[in-house]
Amino acid sequence: MTVAVYLPHEDKTAWWVEMLQDLLPGWDVAALDAIRDPASVRYAVVWRPRPGDLARFPNLRAILSIGAGIDHVLADTALPQGVPIIRTVGDDLTQRMREYVALHVLRHHRDMPRQLQAQAEHDWHAIVVPVAPRRIVGVMGLGNLGAAAARTLAGLGFATRGWSASPKSIDGVETFAGNDQFDSFLSGCEILVNLLPLTDRTRGILDAGLFSKLAKGACVINCARGPHLVEEDLLAALDGGRIKQATLDVFHQEPLPPDHPFWDHPAVTVTPHVASQIDAVTGGRLIAANLKTFDETGTCADLADVTRGY
Amino acid sequence: MTVAVYLPHEDKTAWWVEMLQDLLPGWDVAALDAIRDPASVRYAVVWRPRPGDLARFPNLRAILSIGAGIDHVLADTALPQGVPIIRTVGDDLTQRMREYVALHVLRHHRDMPRQLQAQAEHDWHAIVVPVAPRRIVGVMGLGNLGAAAARTLAGLGFATRGWSASPKSIDGVETFAGNDQFDSFLSGCEILVNLLPLTDRTRGILDAGLFSKLAKGACVINCARGPHLVEEDLLAALDGGRIKQATLDVFHQEPLPPDHPFWDHPAVTVTPHVASQIDAVTGGRLIAANLKTFDETGTCADLADVTRGY
Repeated sequence: MTVAVYLPHEDKTAWWVEMLQDLLPGWDVAALDAIRDPASVRYAVVWRPRPGDLARFPNLRAILSIGAGIDHVLADTALPQGVPIIRTVGDDLTQRMREYVALHVLRHHRDMPRQLQAQAEHDWHAIVVPVAPRRIVGVMGLGNLGAAAARTLAGLGFATRGWSASPKSIDGVETFAGNDQFDSFLSGCEILVNLLPLTDRTRGILDAGLFSKLAKGACVINCARGPHLVEEDLLAALDGGRIKQATLDVFHQEPLPPDHPFWDHPAVTVTPHVASQIDAVTGGRLIAANLKTFDETGTCADLADVTRGY
Repeated sequence: MTVAVYLPHEDKTAWWVEMLQDLLPGWDVAALDAIRDPASVRYAVVWRPRPGDLARFPNLRAILSIGAGIDHVLADTALPQGVPIIRTVGDDLTQRMREYVALHVLRHHRDMPRQLQAQAEHDWHAIVVPVAPRRIVGVMGLGNLGAAAARTLAGLGFATRGWSASPKSIDGVETFAGNDQFDSFLSGCEILVNLLPLTDRTRGILDAGLFSKLAKGACVINCARGPHLVEEDLLAALDGGRIKQATLDVFHQEPLPPDHPFWDHPAVTVTPHVASQIDAVTGGRLIAANLKTFDETGTCADLADVTRGY
């Protein structure tokens, strides 16, 4: 029973191989590039596999995504069809995302960027903002992570809205669903958090049209996937004052290239895809458990819906 | 029925006079310095009265503090004895303090200062920290504001402790009380939030001795009163690495003097006493309601205990 492991960084791959081998005694865990007998591979544990990587294994039973999203697997143009894809989700990842969203919504709410600027100028300048119950915050995407983020924001007292493709109900959150209610969701929104899955329908959703429907001077937080955002549209909206500030954790190209304009933009906070990072300890346990369950039962609670794309 | 109003800034005084006069039709509200007949004054609404300000009024029935603390009133060396002091507390102030504490605990937890430094250097450097349930956060002071802050931190998932002079019980928070349990409370604490009232017993409590009892590299947040902190001890603890970072909202001298070392210290975040700022709209309503209640009944729920000092 061979498990092939691939991540874009060799040292990370080695770390995951070691961790999974410890958790799966009796299985054979190896780096994908070190596999000598492709026919022996039953499972692949991957983050951003290269096109063709997975097509090499004729007996593949399932692909395990090292992450909650499966877009990075579906991006493989030679992906073997009909092989189930299993996501990695867990309390730890949800907790990390809740922290990230709470932190950055509060940062924008209390205008910490301007407050830090005042400190740099030795300026005792009090920035007085409305209390959270008078601040409208919207979360796009109400899956595991989005629903938890919306609940957390409501718990902090924000006037919280949520939007998703299909109707959802969350205590303390005003929910909207589908295309019909998208504009109502956006209207008046002062801080927008994107936690949508990346699909053909959501790619480029954070564009000039969307920005123009938010409250003027709104803040945008993208902690889903880079291609949700039309980068030029954000830069134009920031420079035109339509959007006041943005916090971005994900980018079209990661790592963000050293000469990218986001790095030095005074209204952009860049974090290096750390909102909800999977570590090999916690993530390894989740993936090993899913592997065992799937191997024994042929299914698993974290099976993705490949036709929906998440 | 005359109400005298005093704040250190004339324009703020004028704003409060106008606001309170609107809320108290039939009463006579005036700036303290404009009072011509001191014997007519029954109530004084003050923030940091100057020594002797209140002793001028022989018929004073109550003093209303524009704030939750009464230390700034008790600091008046000529304060008339036996005059009840009424604090200003309310949902709005509690909400603002919850936001401030959540924001700054999360900032330190996720090491935003270092993350922003990495951005300034165009460095795609992921800072991975433990999840909140593995982070010990302590709140000193469990009055209205401290208890709400502790509840909020527990809601965000932090391993939350609270300490107060007398025993308190708060769901999801490990509580400690009195001198005997102070060291146990501090031991292992990684982020410390001070929300104690300022009294003779708590003045200077944030000193080298306390810092040495926290987890090495702990962060300290002071959003109570400046004199809780021994400033030289904090600077020494920061420079020696005993304390990693501090966020300070209050200072011995406010506004913080332009040449104070805190402004430029790389490990200190300065905010200009905005954690839970009372505005004349919300605060005015709370104070007007307390004035009416006290005037009609001779007492009020927000009466401070002058012997305890809060």
